[in-house]
Amino acid sequence: MPREHQYTLAQLTQGLNVTIKGDPNVLIQGVCAIQESQAGFITFLTNPLYKKYLPVTQAAAVILSPEHADLCATNAIISADPYYTYAKIARYFSPKSTVAAGIHPTAVIGQDANLDPTATISAHCVIGQRVTIGANVILGPACVVGDDTHIGADTHIDAQVTIYARIQIGERVRIASGTVIGSDGFGFAKNQGVWHKIPQLGTVIIEDDVDIGANCAIDRGAIENTVIERGVKLDNHIQIGHNAHIGAHTIMAGCVGVAGSAVIGKHCLIGGGTGIGGHITIPDNVAVTGMTAVTKSITQPGVYSSGVGGLVTNQEWRKNSARVQRLEKLMDRVKVLEIALAALIERTPQ
Amino acid sequence: MPREHQYTLAQLTQGLNVTIKGDPNVLIQGVCAIQESQAGFITFLTNPLYKKYLPVTQAAAVILSPEHADLCATNAIISADPYYTYAKIARYFSPKSTVAAGIHPTAVIGQDANLDPTATISAHCVIGQRVTIGANVILGPACVVGDDTHIGADTHIDAQVTIYARIQIGERVRIASGTVIGSDGFGFAKNQGVWHKIPQLGTVIIEDDVDIGANCAIDRGAIENTVIERGVKLDNHIQIGHNAHIGAHTIMAGCVGVAGSAVIGKHCLIGGGTGIGGHITIPDNVAVTGMTAVTKSITQPGVYSSGVGGLVTNQEWRKNSARVQRLEKLMDRVKVLEIALAALIERTPQ
Amino acid sequence: MPREHQYTLAQLTQGLNVTIKGDPNVLIQGVCAIQESQAGFITFLTNPLYKKYLPVTQAAAVILSPEHADLCATNAIISADPYYTYAKIARYFSPKSTVAAGIHPTAVIGQDANLDPTATISAHCVIGQRVTIGANVILGPACVVGDDTHIGADTHIDAQVTIYARIQIGERVRIASGTVIGSDGFGFAKNQGVWHKIPQLGTVIIEDDVDIGANCAIDRGAIENTVIERGVKLDNHIQIGHNAHIGAHTIMAGCVGVAGSAVIGKHCLIGGGTGIGGHITIPDNVAVTGMTAVTKSITQPGVYSSGVGGLVTNQEWRKNSARVQRLEKLMDRVKVLEIALAALIERTPQ
Repeated sequence: MPREHQYTLAQLTQGLNVTIKGDPNVLIQGVCAIQESQAGFITFLTNPLYKKYLPVTQAAAVILSPEHADLCATNAIISADPYYTYAKIARYFSPKSTVAAGIHPTAVIGQDANLDPTATISAHCVIGQRVTIGANVILGPACVVGDDTHIGADTHIDAQVTIYARIQIGERVRIASGTVIGSDGFGFAKNQGVWHKIPQLGTVIIEDDVDIGANCAIDRGAIENTVIERGVKLDNHIQIGHNAHIGAHTIMAGCVGVAGSAVIGKHCLIGGGTGIGGHITIPDNVAVTGMTAVTKSITQPGVYSSGVGGLVTNQEWRKNSARVQRLEKLMDRVKVLEIALAALIERTPQ
Repeated sequence: MPREHQYTLAQLTQGLNVTIKGDPNVLIQGVCAIQESQAGFITFLTNPLYKKYLPVTQAAAVILSPEHADLCATNAIISADPYYTYAKIARYFSPKSTVAAGIHPTAVIGQDANLDPTATISAHCVIGQRVTIGANVILGPACVVGDDTHIGADTHIDAQVTIYARIQIGERVRIASGTVIGSDGFGFAKNQGVWHKIPQLGTVIIEDDVDIGANCAIDRGAIENTVIERGVKLDNHIQIGHNAHIGAHTIMAGCVGVAGSAVIGKHCLIGGGTGIGGHITIPDNVAVTGMTAVTKSITQPGVYSSGVGGLVTNQEWRKNSARVQRLEKLMDRVKVLEIALAALIERTPQ
Repeated sequence: MPREHQYTLAQLTQGLNVTIKGDPNVLIQGVCAIQESQAGFITFLTNPLYKKYLPVTQAAAVILSPEHADLCATNAIISADPYYTYAKIARYFSPKSTVAAGIHPTAVIGQDANLDPTATISAHCVIGQRVTIGANVILGPACVVGDDTHIGADTHIDAQVTIYARIQIGERVRIASGTVIGSDGFGFAKNQGVWHKIPQLGTVIIEDDVDIGANCAIDRGAIENTVIERGVKLDNHIQIGHNAHIGAHTIMAGCVGVAGSAVIGKHCLIGGGTGIGGHITIPDNVAVTGMTAVTKSITQPGVYSSGVGGLVTNQEWRKNSARVQRLEKLMDRVKVLEIALAALIERTPQ
């Protein structure tokens, strides 16, 4: 995929803590994968399985770690952290948004809203009363922001995001389309066989530098607030229940569900499809593998999973399941054996 | 979080079946959690673990059950069901919506739509032809309602909800943002290696007093209808397949998937992340724990789960999984032992 | 549910490879389920459990396979594939959309967009710059389409769908409401304890004849593209990670999560709630049962599952889980028995 602009390796690496081995003036027109390298493009090596491509790459340059530099058939950018270096360099090739700054004439703005003049409010947005929006904020088309919500500077919100009333969004936050922030938490009291709604009076606080994917739902707190601390990264289809608290720099893959009042520490890794039960606490630096049911609190850092048994054929799955159902009988048979053997030993002459 | 209005305990409890112990004229400005109580606020005790806070609470009043009244250091509202009483009292402190009644000038209204004059149709809504909307209905911004759909009185629908054509929504229903009601059910017939769409000719019927969370999807029926009976409460990210029938007052936590033609009874509790297979029936009064795969019909009330094994370290998970894979060999070894022992017993003199 | 138009059996079966047994001129006003048949309606039999209804059906006609024709008390349409024949016939009774063709005056159209004059752009849509939209395309209300995206002929997109910039959508594609296509993939590099975003420079390619349900999210590729091949059918709430590749005519039930760079073959069946890990490959003609964790690549066609143990009472689940935890001790006891028995055999006279 050719991109519009070209940059020299020297330009691309300016300010980065890297060494160029080769020609710093070579022109780069875009990025490519190492297994499908193209002339004029830059790529990177992080997975050692792919080092076999280094001697034969067509790329104009490869970002790699020092131990792989000698294998590289082309210009090399030597970095202690090639993936991070790639993250920085790839930004040069991100297409620039063409959204016009200012308030689109079809946007509907509530009374006493305080919108920074550098903010972009796209077509068909609906902004509530007394909303405050900081500098350089971009709201994509058809976003809805409720009364009294605050959106911090440099935050970018894609099309069709709903942010309810009285929500606090920090600076440099990214929110993808279809996400809903601040819907009522799920609280009902049963009385005489009928569920009665508990008013959800708290809010949601999204701190700085949080990324939230598409079609997520983050509920507002019941009394206290739902809090997403700084630097948290959430993939798509994530559900965060009321009063939950997600610690800084924790990252969650797609389709995770966090039930109400769960408290998750900092720097955790939560695999895709995992469910975290209500009122559960997880300390800092915990990893949970994908599709785990976190049914009780975790007290020590480490890697956690639930259930038993990985991927097998359905036939093997049926056999294993039947064997587990027969475990009690097996234990009984072992007990019978133990008693019979003990009796036999006793009556056997030494 | 101070709220705008203050009420006396006498006002807050008017019409409720409770007893005030203490000063009925004390002023309450909001609600707080019992573990973070604040002067001037009201709280409640339902979890006995928290009764330690009663003698030291700063709150102006606590809603509690009779056996805890003596422990309480402040004014007490004594109730047979403190959580239900809290639900009623907390409503006084819900912020009032400032949405203006009537039809916003940016809303697009189809021909022959019949909108009650007390209904609120917010900015950028798109209402189809022959839609009927009852008294006091509130549609938040940017909702889309298809032709011939009916929305009953006192129903509140938040921003960015899509309701397809020919859907029936009852009275006092609540629907949170991003939810889709009436999309085509997932029906295809394979012929010569290619899937052919089955037209989805049924509709969705949402009865009175149903709550539906954010980013749910409820498909229309294939021939018959998808039905959500009265008083059902659905959390966020819930998927209901075509022709499914959910019995009255059943409650489902987040991320539940209900496949097509499943029939779920009344007063069921479905834990978060649970999947319910197609054509499965579940009777009244069943509870299913979170992340369960309901792969066959249930015939008796009770509590159900699937799989084996709770949360453990990933290392322990690997060991358990390997042990299950070795179960067959273990059973063989026990069988060998039984035969050898029987043979030995036979040739051992009494 | 009576429908507006009536058709004779002869009209309904025109061009289909079927035989009418009975009166080809009988008038049909709609479709019904075989267990709730109604005079004047047509139904079908695919599940042999329901053949008991054939002798007593009230329906005007039944679509069935040859071996059931003699049981049928009414007119029969005999087909080698009754469900496929039903799919074709039911289309006559689909309500016709009343959306007006052309561009609704409230739609916002970007510069240099190229919209076919036969396309329908509904109210409150926002179309980016240089978007191309083919013949007979229908965009429902409040869709957002990013710059440089292409939508092929005869594609129908329901209300409130977001399609990001530079996306390729094929012909005859169907997308239900709330779905998001082209959001950034989930890629971050950790450096000094902080996650840094990897720019997502690829796009999404949706080939012809793909169906996508409600509230799905399909991320754009990091460098290469996310590809959904022709004829793929996706139910609601499906998440497709960046760079994933879904082979032609594969079908996925609701709530499936496909992580980044997974490659899934053609003609696969993926059960609801299944999670497919990152970088995993699955060959053609694989079936995965619902709620499976696909944690490693599959190399052979077949049916696959994960975990151990089906649906049981929660009490039984607790017992089974405890037994698995005790498996190691059981193995130790069997080993002790084996040693003791061997010793005993040795000192027992023959």
